[in-house]
Amino acid sequence: MSNRNISMLCDFYEFTMAAGYFHEGLHKRNVYFDVIFRNVPDGGGFAIAAGLEQVIDFISNLRFTEDDITYLRAKKLFDESFLNYLKDLKFTGDIYAVPEGTPVFPNEPILTVKATAIEAQIIETAVLLALNHQSLIATKANRIVRAAHGRDILEFGSRRAPGVDGAVLGARAAYIGGCVGTSCTMTDIEHDIPASGTMAHSWVQNFESEYDAFATYCSLYPNNATLLVDTYNTLKSGVPNAIRAIKEILLPQGIKQFAIRLDSGDIAYLSKKARLMLDEAGLNECKIVATNSLDEYIIRDLILQGAMVDVFGVGERLITAKSDPVFGGVYKLVAIEDEEGKIVPKIKKSESITKITIPHFKKLYRYYDKDSCMALADELCVYDETVDDTLPRTIFNPYETWKTKTLTNFSAKVLQVPVFLAGKLVYKLPDVHSIKEYCKEQVAHLWDEVKRFENPHIYYVDLSKKLWDIKQMLLKEDD
Amino acid sequence: MSNRNISMLCDFYEFTMAAGYFHEGLHKRNVYFDVIFRNVPDGGGFAIAAGLEQVIDFISNLRFTEDDITYLRAKKLFDESFLNYLKDLKFTGDIYAVPEGTPVFPNEPILTVKATAIEAQIIETAVLLALNHQSLIATKANRIVRAAHGRDILEFGSRRAPGVDGAVLGARAAYIGGCVGTSCTMTDIEHDIPASGTMAHSWVQNFESEYDAFATYCSLYPNNATLLVDTYNTLKSGVPNAIRAIKEILLPQGIKQFAIRLDSGDIAYLSKKARLMLDEAGLNECKIVATNSLDEYIIRDLILQGAMVDVFGVGERLITAKSDPVFGGVYKLVAIEDEEGKIVPKIKKSESITKITIPHFKKLYRYYDKDSCMALADELCVYDETVDDTLPRTIFNPYETWKTKTLTNFSAKVLQVPVFLAGKLVYKLPDVHSIKEYCKEQVAHLWDEVKRFENPHIYYVDLSKKLWDIKQMLLKEDD
Repeated sequence: MSNRNISMLCDFYEFTMAAGYFHEGLHKRNVYFDVIFRNVPDGGGFAIAAGLEQVIDFISNLRFTEDDITYLRAKKLFDESFLNYLKDLKFTGDIYAVPEGTPVFPNEPILTVKATAIEAQIIETAVLLALNHQSLIATKANRIVRAAHGRDILEFGSRRAPGVDGAVLGARAAYIGGCVGTSCTMTDIEHDIPASGTMAHSWVQNFESEYDAFATYCSLYPNNATLLVDTYNTLKSGVPNAIRAIKEILLPQGIKQFAIRLDSGDIAYLSKKARLMLDEAGLNECKIVATNSLDEYIIRDLILQGAMVDVFGVGERLITAKSDPVFGGVYKLVAIEDEEGKIVPKIKKSESITKITIPHFKKLYRYYDKDSCMALADELCVYDETVDDTLPRTIFNPYETWKTKTLTNFSAKVLQVPVFLAGKLVYKLPDVHSIKEYCKEQVAHLWDEVKRFENPHIYYVDLSKKLWDIKQMLLKEDD
Repeated sequence: MSNRNISMLCDFYEFTMAAGYFHEGLHKRNVYFDVIFRNVPDGGGFAIAAGLEQVIDFISNLRFTEDDITYLRAKKLFDESFLNYLKDLKFTGDIYAVPEGTPVFPNEPILTVKATAIEAQIIETAVLLALNHQSLIATKANRIVRAAHGRDILEFGSRRAPGVDGAVLGARAAYIGGCVGTSCTMTDIEHDIPASGTMAHSWVQNFESEYDAFATYCSLYPNNATLLVDTYNTLKSGVPNAIRAIKEILLPQGIKQFAIRLDSGDIAYLSKKARLMLDEAGLNECKIVATNSLDEYIIRDLILQGAMVDVFGVGERLITAKSDPVFGGVYKLVAIEDEEGKIVPKIKKSESITKITIPHFKKLYRYYDKDSCMALADELCVYDETVDDTLPRTIFNPYETWKTKTLTNFSAKVLQVPVFLAGKLVYKLPDVHSIKEYCKEQVAHLWDEVKRFENPHIYYVDLSKKLWDIKQMLLKEDD
């Protein structure tokens, strides 16, 4: 676990609100917040939740230093009683969350906080940042991986990443989403995700000839040679020089693993031509790696056009989630405990119907068909409801309530797990390899219709009758 | 300056290439690399260079620790002589760069490195990351600021930022590009950029009534009250409750500074209605802040439609540069010193014409009209050329060479400044406020035609005759 203290990675208004709660005596009251998102990026059918490990890091290290207090004092907005309170603040609440790698859908709480008003408020920005960033990249990576139909995807985006964390944690999220490795060495060190690489054009340019560059590389790294063939002319010089270097240096050593990399020009055309040249030279085992502003759409088209690519290196369009770079997770108050400890549901109505929140402390179920193991629907219940999956259950669309479906022969799983209880970490974080495997397995439980890139089937996220009634009641209360 | 060591934020192939140079005895030879970009994001007419401070941090802290060496050793790719070399490695070369805040154009070297092959190679990833990330956000922020025609822009994106650095350094870059402040407290602490904020919906929901929430806030923060009016119903409850709280609590204290914030619904309609209500209540001084997925296009349209907004808070679309989130800076070898110390220009031809590099160690000039002070053109010269701006100078388009222009009455400015010489930092970093001012002033030297969002005028970036001839010669060399 990291011991970086990012407690001040906090929108300034969290402090002014926190001080307000303090002075109004609201700071000891428990409140409930949900992290939900409203839209899947790229119009996809589902997202992949990620970033929980960094939430745990952040919460575990939450602490305001003397320097932080001095900074806040200088703002002349906060009095000493509040600053003293902050100085001793630790997170003492509960956090529930879906495990990293879980496919999630709009309006579901991917994380729920129960804590005193100040604690819950002060963690908002960093919690959202961690979940939004990594869920964005994991979701994008999963799309790219699915487009590649079993071919390996390597994450190559560090140089275009939005900051050091953008590179390192982006590569982590990409791995969770299904990439097999990264170019980023720091990610290997900090997160045990295999780093690898090929060569740059500068390597080739640093030698008298392209052949010299390739031959030297094969001599130095006989078991890791991927030769970049487009520095001068891919088909006229690059591929022939690569073939010559491989034949002269690697084959005599009995080596069977080597590759070329294409980084410009038309990848469909060049990969087919290169494949022919390699095969004619007897190098059927030579793999072809392609890079150059790839994403799921280009990879899908390249494969449709018969491109002979074995491995895709994906950089800028993955690490920035270029086609839709915002994961819009929000942190919304859903309930407040009154003086007797009763949980009072709260709603935010807003001017925009899509911004209306689903109130209350909730329980999130996923239902699977017992025979096919496929996910059938999710249902949001009130926290104290329990679904008995031995009985048929009728669910209904929360907007078009006449649309109902009765489930039989299903198993019900509660998706959120306890992460912190009374401030204590109770969740054993899986290692990143297990998270990646879990993600792959969970995505396999989704129908292909939900995985379509354009106009996917909208997976059902229904409300229980009890929860739906509460929401209607709150909506009807006078403005 | 930060003392964070990010030396391992490095694509793995930099290490394999570096070890290769080491074993081939190429590691003592000086090489020259340029950082250039090929396209302005969003099809804009210019970009804003930023991130140099983080490059300086990185280079100043460059050092491989025992742990790093142990990690590399475990890869079983590197021998001890190379690992020992790495252990003692420091940057001993030269770096030249355009100052942060400078408007820059495609194909210009925004940073140039002269260093031994290993040093130059090993810094590639982190240098590109710093410049790409912050130039992207500074460029986007500058567009948004220009769209607002003098209205203040606040950066509010931390919760949607791609990692902690994405939030903090993104906010720094946004400030350089012209934003007046940020919501991010850590950015204030680390970069002296004023953090501020309003209130969240949760504040309003935490009170018995919207009025109570507003009144309490006004009592606690009489000089900083910006009331969020869309939790329930903007015009029916939010604005009337805000007016009441301001009149009852702030006006009696003689306070004249307060605001409301709109965060959903149609901002054009609601701001005009709210303005009327505020004015009718005698609160002409009440400002209106608008937020909700804004960017330069929406702000331009809102202003065209007469929206009565004084301040825009811009979040996700700025901090991710949503409409075009990749700044494609690349790091390309342009020259190598031979054994006699002669600088030998190098080119990368590539399969794609836009990926052909401009060879050689260069000098970048900007020419200004002496009367209007407007920027006329940039010219790339060979490093040893000097432009005499007391003489007329004929420049020509490097692709359409018959298009020429003769400049008279101009002043010539060399845009790159020395940053490191022989490994020593020789550049005095301006503070971020000076950078922001410099950016504003330099953008004022550009014609409006270059600043247009769609189809801007293409600013001239020409090659000197000498440089053009060298490029042609290298292009004609056999593949």
